[in-house]
This record gives sequence, C-alpha cells and structure tokens, in this order.
Amino acid sequence: MKRKITLKQIARELDVSISTVSKALKNSHEISQDTRDKVQAFAKLYNYRPNNIALSLKNRKTKTIGIMIPEIVHHFFSKVIKGIELVANKRGYNVIVGLSNESFDKEVINMEMLANGSIDGFILSISKETLLQQDYHHFNETINQGMPIVMFDRVVDEIQCDKVIVDDLNGAKKAVLKLLNKGCKHIAIITTNDYLSIGKLRTEGYIQALEEFNIQSNPSLILKIEDKLLSDENVDELEKQLIKLFSSNSIDGIFAVNELYAVTAMKVARSLGLSVPKDVQVISFSDGVLSKHSTPSLTTVSQHGQEMGEKAAELLINRLENEDEGDEEHYETIVIETELIERDSTK
Amino acid sequence: MKRKITLKQIARELDVSISTVSKALKNSHEISQDTRDKVQAFAKLYNYRPNNIALSLKNRKTKTIGIMIPEIVHHFFSKVIKGIELVANKRGYNVIVGLSNESFDKEVINMEMLANGSIDGFILSISKETLLQQDYHHFNETINQGMPIVMFDRVVDEIQCDKVIVDDLNGAKKAVLKLLNKGCKHIAIITTNDYLSIGKLRTEGYIQALEEFNIQSNPSLILKIEDKLLSDENVDELEKQLIKLFSSNSIDGIFAVNELYAVTAMKVARSLGLSVPKDVQVISFSDGVLSKHSTPSLTTVSQHGQEMGEKAAELLINRLENEDEGDEEHYETIVIETELIERDSTK
Repeated sequence: MKRKITLKQIARELDVSISTVSKALKNSHEISQDTRDKVQAFAKLYNYRPNNIALSLKNRKTKTIGIMIPEIVHHFFSKVIKGIELVANKRGYNVIVGLSNESFDKEVINMEMLANGSIDGFILSISKETLLQQDYHHFNETINQGMPIVMFDRVVDEIQCDKVIVDDLNGAKKAVLKLLNKGCKHIAIITTNDYLSIGKLRTEGYIQALEEFNIQSNPSLILKIEDKLLSDENVDELEKQLIKLFSSNSIDGIFAVNELYAVTAMKVARSLGLSVPKDVQVISFSDGVLSKHSTPSLTTVSQHGQEMGEKAAELLINRLENEDEGDEEHYETIVIETELIERDSTK
Repeated sequence: MKRKITLKQIARELDVSISTVSKALKNSHEISQDTRDKVQAFAKLYNYRPNNIALSLKNRKTKTIGIMIPEIVHHFFSKVIKGIELVANKRGYNVIVGLSNESFDKEVINMEMLANGSIDGFILSISKETLLQQDYHHFNETINQGMPIVMFDRVVDEIQCDKVIVDDLNGAKKAVLKLLNKGCKHIAIITTNDYLSIGKLRTEGYIQALEEFNIQSNPSLILKIEDKLLSDENVDELEKQLIKLFSSNSIDGIFAVNELYAVTAMKVARSLGLSVPKDVQVISFSDGVLSKHSTPSLTTVSQHGQEMGEKAAELLINRLENEDEGDEEHYETIVIETELIERDSTK
C-alpha cells in the first residue's frame, strides 16, 4: 500500500528537525543550500505533497474552522471551544480541534495536516514549546498563503493577525488592589514561569497594585511554580512548596494565577491552622468549576473563556466572508475585560 | 467562487432531514423512491461528492485518528482524549477532534467531513439525540465502507464494532454496597434519565445492591435529573430538587451518578443542618477534579477515562495495522473495571 510521506518521516530519515524540513521545503534562506537540496530531493523522491493552501482556497470552501489548542484537560480551553462552536454553528460553520500538547513539532504537523484542504482558517493558542523556541514560521507562512489565523490568550507581537486576549495585567492588579483594600499587608502571588506571557503579565499587575499602596514587592512572596506542577497529579509537590511559603512568611493574602493553586493554598492554610478568609484572604484567576464548589468558595477574576471563543470566531468568519475587500493590513486585537466575582474567600 | 455543496444544504433546499439525504444518497430502501430520485438529482446538479471512504482508503493512509465526542466541557471526555493521544502519539498517529454537541445532525455532518479523506478511523461516543432517535445508519455505513470505528462509554448493541465500556452496573453496586456496609439504611440515588445507558445501568446496580440487603427500592428515593441540569449554570434548579428530596425523606446515604450532583447534594445537606459523613454519607461516580478538592473530599467510583482512551486507541490502531488479516467478524468489547476511592464523605 502506497503511503503518503509526512514531514515527520522526512525529518526522521534525514535526521533534521521538523522545522528545518518545513522551512527547507519552502526554500527558506534560514536553511543552508545543502540541506534545502537534500530535503527537496528526498521529498520529490517520495512524492511529498507540500501544503498548497492557496490552491485549495481558490477551489473550495470547507465551511470548517480548525482550532489548535495546547491541551485538552483544561476548563479554560473547553470554554473557549464552546464559545467558538456557538458562533460557528450560528453562522453555518463546523469546527475541528487539533491538539499541540504544548509541543512545537505537533503544532507544525497538525497545522500542516488541517491546512491541507480540511479547513478555511485557524483559531489557535500557541504551545509553550513554540513560545520558548520563538519559532513562528508556521504561523507566518500559513497567513502568507492566504489562510487567516485568529490567536487567543497566548499570542505574540511578532505575528500579524487578529487576536483576542484577556487583560491579564489589569485583572491581576484589580484582584491585588481588592486584597489591599480589604486590609491585607503581606500578599503572596502564586504564579507560573515568566515565558508564559500570562504568568508574566499577572505578576506585573501584582507588583503595580502593591506600588499603588507604596509597598515594595518582596521576592520571597513571589512563588513561581514549575509547569509540571500545574496538573492534578502533582498536587503533593505543590503542597510542599506552599507549606514552605507559609512557614517562612507571615502571609495574610494570596493571589493565585489559577484556581488549582488557590484551592491547594487554602487547603495548606487550613492544615497550618489558618482560617480563610479570617487569617488569609484568597483571590484567584479562574474559569473553572472548582471556584464555586470549593469550601470556602473562591473569589475570582473571571477570564470569560466562552466570550473569548465567541469573539475569536466572529473575527475569523468576518475575515473569511469579506476576503475580497483586501483588509489584510488591518488586524484587530480584542481585549476582553476581566470581572471580579466576590465569594467567600475574601472578607 | 465555486462552493462545495454540503449534506446540510441539500437537506435545507429540499426540506428533508440530513439523515434522509444521507440515506437517499446511499440509495437506502428506507427512503421512498421519489425522495431518493429528488435527492440524487439535486446532488448531481450541484456536483455533490459523496463520501468515498473505500476509495480514499485504498490510496493513502492519513495516520490520523478522528475522535467524535458529545461535548467538550466535560472532564471525563478530556481524560479519554488524553488517553487516546498518549497511545496515538506513541504509535505515530495524530488525532483530530470533532464535536457532536449531543446533536444527531452534527454527528452525521462531522463524521461525513472527517471520513472524507482526513482520517483512517474513528473513536467515538454517541450523542444523546442519536441514542434517542436510535438512528445508527451513519455508523453502520462508515463501517461497511471499510473505515473502522471504536466506540467508548456510550455504545449500543446494534452496532458491530470494537467497544470500550465501564462496568457501570457493578461500579454502582459496589458503591451502594459500601454505603450499606457502613450502616446506611435510607439511600437515595441521584441519576439521569434512563435513555442514557449509563444512568440506567447505574440505577440497576443501585437496586441490585439494595436487594442483596433485602431492602425494597423506594421510588421516592430515586431522583432522575433532567439533562439540562447537568451543567454548571443550572445548579439552582438542581438544588431545589435536592432540598425537596431531603425534606420529604429521612436520608442517611446518597449515591450520585456524577460529582456535580454529589457536591451539590453535600452543599444542600449542609444548608439543612446535616453533617457529611456523620448524618449523611455520600459516594459519587466520577472522573473529575471536584472530588479531591471538595470539602469534605468525596468518596468516588473512578471511571478511569484515560485508561478507556488508551484501550480504545490500541484497539483502533491494531485494527488499522492488521486490516489484511480479515478479522472483521471478531469485534472486541473491553470492560474497564471501576475502582472505589475512599475519601472523607463516607465514615
């Protein structure tokens, strides 16, 4: 049986990266002439069919939107997809979902696969590995070939396209100001590594709020959690770090960038004999189910995932249906305002 | 621009259902000759390209698995997808995900779209509407054309294919026996409508457990919740029904078919001055994040969503890679055993 050769197989055979193969096939000058020749000859030999998006766009409309998200076990992304679906269905579009699993290679492969005639355009959030490598050629080439992309949540300035983002900085600032106004003096932030822009911006908002109250931010109150701990399976290690944080500081306020951190922090506080909200008040960024059902229920900064999805779908479909007007140069960035929902973890 | 006509458009133009169009194009004798002629003529006029799965299968392998799930905002389905992905990636396959949104029409349209050259086989769970209508022609035709399907969780006997299911009946029985052994005398079940086999089987397990203790099941202790209440937005109405259940019966045990029901029941019990587990013990079917983080944490019957996904992917890929052996007649049903995880909502 004749099998279609894939980018991945070419990369494996020639012992180069998928990114290199992808660039070499597009004759990018980032790749040495020698490698380009080798890749192109190999692809020809095995009848690799490059991604002729422009060609397929001329001939048909699939009425399908391709969604690419970094991971599936995540309430926020589910809500975004729900929002995309709502608008897509109303306007006669289907959606299919591809998963990058936070991997650059998977992102490139899946985009290549979906772009190859299955969909009219992408709505996507960038994988962590891609953000670390800062290699965005696959997005730029897709756009250059005439297939529109709308990015949400995890976006980068380097890519010219429509974007939907949350106002992370001001959302965080609002939360920390609330804690300060409720009398907290020693507020810790539980956040992620900086290369995720959301972790960075929320930390920035935390620092700005403290500055408004003339409080110098204290590095020992900024707990940056390793990625792998943002999972239900690694709660024990997260708890250890939180116990250390509580034990070495006298904390009366916690701002967490997601609800798993917040719920775990409340549990740890309780185990140390601290009462929430009497001794420690807690606010979390969130778009999940834990906030409402935790005890006490969590005061949160809501991210409005569904609304982000709806806006992203509207931007994409508008662009798809007005493509003859040639407004490629005017990209829009929609900023979704966050909302502070007060529950029982604050006074 | 020439647009490809879709099943949906044909259905709308001729004012018939998508199912009728799909069957008429396949010349099914369930559809009147008149309608078949009309649909076929229309399809020809607009160059509708029917789904030539068999043809596309002969020519290429996509190395992609199509997953069709009823809804995305659901931790169980996310876990299944994670399991499928793990095995698929290990064996060199990609996955793409389609959503039926519990709609028969969307299920038919999405399967048609994915089957049309994008994927090698399906892993799917049937939509509620399809289960209600009992119209399974789209599954049977896909299988007959040579594209394998593996079904998980929501399956039906009428379709001959590989299946992965949870032992719902025995899982429920185990949970209720545990409550009985811990001294509960008046156990209520909070379940779904019967047309979802999971609700039916779990209710059956509940009744069998009571019978082992010579307890006659009491209809007023069986609370069947309307579908639309299985959502975070309709918790208020769910609470009202639970208050009624508690007020009109003296209940010392609750078995819930999902964790949202259980967590809400604990909240209602608390508001009525009952303590969990002292006055009321609670066990829930679950594969979510609420169980661990609720107060008290929930004793659950774990569904092992990830394991279901792994098994389903193994079944499908094995079948795809051994297709020349002609074992079409031997379908396998893998039953995943549930596991009782004791936490603080039982004594």
